[in-house]
Amino acid sequence: MNKDLPVSVIIFGASGDLTQRKLIPSLLNLSRKGRLPKAFSIVGFGATAFTDEQFRNHLQDGAKQFAGFKFTPEEWATFAPHLFYQQGRYDQTADFQKLADRLSELEAGTANRLYYMAIPPTLFPNIIEQLGTTGQIHENGGWRRVVLEKPFGTDLASAQKLNHQVHKGLNEDQIYRIDHYLGKETVQNILFTRFANTIFEPLWNRNYIDHVQITVAEKVGLEHRAGYYDSVGVLRDMFQNHLLQLLMLVAMEPPASFKASSLRNEKVKVLSAIQPITGSAVAEHTVRAQYKGYLNEAEVKPDSITPTYAALRLYVNNWRWQGVPFYLRSGKNLAEKHSQIIISFKEPPLAMFPMAPGHKTASNMLVLYLQPDEGIHLRFEAKAPDTVSDTRSVDMEFNYAEAFGQTAIPESYERLLLDALQGDASLFTRADEVETAWGLIDPILQAWEANLAPPLAYYKPGTWGPAEANTMLARDGRKWMHEEARHMLES
Amino acid sequence: MNKDLPVSVIIFGASGDLTQRKLIPSLLNLSRKGRLPKAFSIVGFGATAFTDEQFRNHLQDGAKQFAGFKFTPEEWATFAPHLFYQQGRYDQTADFQKLADRLSELEAGTANRLYYMAIPPTLFPNIIEQLGTTGQIHENGGWRRVVLEKPFGTDLASAQKLNHQVHKGLNEDQIYRIDHYLGKETVQNILFTRFANTIFEPLWNRNYIDHVQITVAEKVGLEHRAGYYDSVGVLRDMFQNHLLQLLMLVAMEPPASFKASSLRNEKVKVLSAIQPITGSAVAEHTVRAQYKGYLNEAEVKPDSITPTYAALRLYVNNWRWQGVPFYLRSGKNLAEKHSQIIISFKEPPLAMFPMAPGHKTASNMLVLYLQPDEGIHLRFEAKAPDTVSDTRSVDMEFNYAEAFGQTAIPESYERLLLDALQGDASLFTRADEVETAWGLIDPILQAWEANLAPPLAYYKPGTWGPAEANTMLARDGRKWMHEEARHMLES
Repeated sequence: MNKDLPVSVIIFGASGDLTQRKLIPSLLNLSRKGRLPKAFSIVGFGATAFTDEQFRNHLQDGAKQFAGFKFTPEEWATFAPHLFYQQGRYDQTADFQKLADRLSELEAGTANRLYYMAIPPTLFPNIIEQLGTTGQIHENGGWRRVVLEKPFGTDLASAQKLNHQVHKGLNEDQIYRIDHYLGKETVQNILFTRFANTIFEPLWNRNYIDHVQITVAEKVGLEHRAGYYDSVGVLRDMFQNHLLQLLMLVAMEPPASFKASSLRNEKVKVLSAIQPITGSAVAEHTVRAQYKGYLNEAEVKPDSITPTYAALRLYVNNWRWQGVPFYLRSGKNLAEKHSQIIISFKEPPLAMFPMAPGHKTASNMLVLYLQPDEGIHLRFEAKAPDTVSDTRSVDMEFNYAEAFGQTAIPESYERLLLDALQGDASLFTRADEVETAWGLIDPILQAWEANLAPPLAYYKPGTWGPAEANTMLARDGRKWMHEEARHMLES
Repeated sequence: MNKDLPVSVIIFGASGDLTQRKLIPSLLNLSRKGRLPKAFSIVGFGATAFTDEQFRNHLQDGAKQFAGFKFTPEEWATFAPHLFYQQGRYDQTADFQKLADRLSELEAGTANRLYYMAIPPTLFPNIIEQLGTTGQIHENGGWRRVVLEKPFGTDLASAQKLNHQVHKGLNEDQIYRIDHYLGKETVQNILFTRFANTIFEPLWNRNYIDHVQITVAEKVGLEHRAGYYDSVGVLRDMFQNHLLQLLMLVAMEPPASFKASSLRNEKVKVLSAIQPITGSAVAEHTVRAQYKGYLNEAEVKPDSITPTYAALRLYVNNWRWQGVPFYLRSGKNLAEKHSQIIISFKEPPLAMFPMAPGHKTASNMLVLYLQPDEGIHLRFEAKAPDTVSDTRSVDMEFNYAEAFGQTAIPESYERLLLDALQGDASLFTRADEVETAWGLIDPILQAWEANLAPPLAYYKPGTWGPAEANTMLARDGRKWMHEEARHMLES
């Protein structure tokens, strides 16, 4: 495949929010930075009636409002002529033929093509079929890649079915299942922290780590998607993708290389090593909860048992992690918007320093902050001055934005679009990965949706979740931690 | 021994600088904090003619000027009545008898006594003999301890002789050989960093550490003690005590407990494991240098070959450290006043992340700052944002004064006086320790003083020392580092 060929980016669902807020600002930024080929076209496809001019104006409004960088009219004037719009319906072969003709005209020869599905997954199979029928997937000298927006399935069976359907028209290496979470610099930085340094990896195992906590807390409630959310719940919305992805990055073995296949092999490997929570274990290892008042939300079924909060205790059955619990939690309407991974180390083998009454040496903790403040924080013990041997917990902290400047950190979609254009699938989810993840979530979903154990718990909006989640950790002699970045405390 | 007995602190050399600047402010502070017994007397002994009143006024002036805390007249008024002065000569038994009588009168019964020798070591044996003759060392219900100021000997033979002499009158457990360096909070904190935490000790060995650098750099020149310094040189002045102490704390095995005997056993053990630098090895493993202009200093011999700078490469021959060089350096008239220990880790075994041309992942580094800014600094690699896989070195930092407040950090002497009063000899040097240290320094001193290899090098005042010191590390593919604390860069 020739990398210097012209490229066309075709966006299905081009009149939607994602295109205006994320995709176009990201492509504009890639263009400004000279990271797109000289010849490129961005073609929107959708049901809305737009002329090219109207489409450009619509996107310019979005770029002004949502681009994370300083937007200049000059740069837009350079970028806008690359934008085109093709009205069409997703079930009309004739409309897809019009798209094919338009692309041929714009490309004027061999070109690479990236199709971006910014539409509900139910439409994927049909669009892929239509693209196939109209000869738009055939790799005739240029590559053809398809980015599939999440969610990918709603359970194991539907994910398997969807994989089967898209594989009818596409090879796996043409498929880029996107989870924007993996485009975040700090999420990627988990791998760099672990594998670009000597000092962490030797400690990164059951000999030194007591347990791991992964929290993705949302302060917001249902916002405008209550009806959708009520049919989905927190496990599908957050755990099957984001939280399991974070667990994989924390727990995976060092890959043989930084190539997509090596990385994804290791991710699937560690995912497969997780002990499934099935049958009576669901009551013991999971907590499901709904915030109080959820049933009064518009569009929510009055007798809904959809959980808006979940906590899981997972074990990874391998040499590295045997016996080390991974506690995962996520929910809506919690106290803060806050994502972090806490590596809690064991206590030193010998409590050598005599402590004053009431003082105890705390165990070490490495905190990887994902949001809102991105950084790393190491809590360790130091001698308290003017004592013989009392220790106190102190902190070292690294703040990503402070070190590199907030503006240097690109939008997730920018990075992921660039990767897809460059054929690097490292940060996209492979078919076996998505199915293995669903395989873990499925039995829990089934037990919960049959309203079996554990009982649905409740929590007050604005808190850290239900008491039952604390009880689950308390039984293990542990508790949830929410560390504040020093940077945040100061600001 | 009864800890609640009255205590007398007797200072020989009471009219000197050390008493006024350090000892009295430290004792005053211990008294303010309620750490001295209710009944205590501080008795100065010296050649100067002082009445108690004159002595008190003299010390008040010093406390005002040198106490590191806010000095109040009220506190002085409470403290001053405990101060007394006894004029006397060090060779007159009659004067020691007067001291004995004065003490008996002040103590009015059984009491503990701490004798502090703030005088040149040549006077120690005679004073101890006089104290013995006049019955002041005999432990008749109260303890008798003696603090000996450094230097302790000028080579192995003189240290052995001095130990022999003081042991004639004192048991080893009555002797507190002081090195104020060990009273520094950050020096003690080396042990806490290593042994109150889980995360450092697993990395603290030849598997993960590439080398260690210990730098104690002085910006000042000879100040008022040129004649003395010219007879001593940098090895005796800095290495035999401070630098080897730092090496011991960094390299020692975990002691069985935080008790003095356990700690000192481990220190002697690691000191004994250092490969002595003898014969032809001196040329290879040492650098000696004199700053340019040294020979023009007043009181310096015009043909002096006294080194004002030295750098050593030491190896510790044990399981933990085999093959890991310890580079030590110290000198006068250098670029900065700056003491730090750098633990330089090996590179990760696999360079997994493809780097842009010209970029290279740096190895991790833990820096223990001792002065001027006390803290810990960890350099590690993070992903550079907006790149696929470039890494950059970033820092986490902990600053001691920031965490605890500068005023919380006591003067070294305060801590060490308290320890001596409480019978904790952990931070004092044992006879075998001082002799083992001299045993390492002696062969280097002999080679240098015979003006054998290596040739005396020279360096410009205000630099980081001679080129020869860089060459020694360059031969190993390494270089000296002087890390700036972020805190300092900002201030």
